[in-house]
Amino acid sequence: MECKAALVEAKGSLPEAEIVLRKKGHASADKKAGRATKQGVIGSYIHPGAQLGVLIEVNCESDFVARTEDFQALVHDLAMQVAAADPKFIRKEDVTEAVLARERDIQRARALAEGKPEKMVDKIVEGRMNKFYEEVCLMEQPFIKENTTTIADLIKSKIAKLGENISVSRFARFKVGDAAPTE
Amino acid sequence: MECKAALVEAKGSLPEAEIVLRKKGHASADKKAGRATKQGVIGSYIHPGAQLGVLIEVNCESDFVARTEDFQALVHDLAMQVAAADPKFIRKEDVTEAVLARERDIQRARALAEGKPEKMVDKIVEGRMNKFYEEVCLMEQPFIKENTTTIADLIKSKIAKLGENISVSRFARFKVGDAAPTE
Repeated sequence: MECKAALVEAKGSLPEAEIVLRKKGHASADKKAGRATKQGVIGSYIHPGAQLGVLIEVNCESDFVARTEDFQALVHDLAMQVAAADPKFIRKEDVTEAVLARERDIQRARALAEGKPEKMVDKIVEGRMNKFYEEVCLMEQPFIKENTTTIADLIKSKIAKLGENISVSRFARFKVGDAAPTE
Repeated sequence: MECKAALVEAKGSLPEAEIVLRKKGHASADKKAGRATKQGVIGSYIHPGAQLGVLIEVNCESDFVARTEDFQALVHDLAMQVAAADPKFIRKEDVTEAVLARERDIQRARALAEGKPEKMVDKIVEGRMNKFYEEVCLMEQPFIKENTTTIADLIKSKIAKLGENISVSRFARFKVGDAAPTE
């Protein structure tokens, strides 16, 4: 409610008001993060040439928001993001233990091979794991259209603007020839 | 080669020739069934309202065939088929043992509950399992645009026409709200 009032207030007003709005909005977005998102839209993006395609489900709280242009533009942007940046997971929490363990081993071996001092290795590995999350988790990736923003922040700004919680529940990304061979 | 010659011959000729062609074509299609399909197209279908969407990979042998209108129309038809008929698997062989065992148990219990004689039950269950395959396997489903043809036959007729093996390697079908809840 606060957020919606701020939105109306901010329309056509000065950039300062927008900054306040965005700060308010983001705080408000954090509050909305727990709310159930059962409505939404299925979007797709087929890259020219049809050798790569994405299907994505993006959810919000109401059918009304799902039908807004803003929401549909977000769905389109997210589908393009998945096509271009090839995430393997949605959130950090979705990365499986096995994948994490393998990546840690690789980064540890790499750090040691580079001759980093033993006592620094743990810190170096943690730094590189953050980089790894940025590569493989949709939410942590820099947005392809504006790489100073993460996808998580892009979604937060839409939550602030639209006044409803928004989440990505799943995506599929197919590239011709990438399917596991059927015997 | 035989098949291509027959195709040229048949163009604009009598229906009899078409029947011969289709018979020849199907025999020829069976021969092509083992050939590797590494090219293809990613297609999508979003049902109006954007509450349901499908992504599909359909493969053929050459980039040339992948770009034909015929092939692309097939991809579109298959994506619509998946949207409308909701298959869970591509081929019979893909149905997992666990799913088969559960379905057999259900059908056996159902037949017994209906008072079918014990010695007939096995046959009844097998008959119903065929029906089950028709429901859950894309290849066994009746084509939504022409329900006397199965999807396997639709694809065979395209193999005969285009002269290359064609296969479906994977699909995804998302309906808003159907995703497994993330905890």
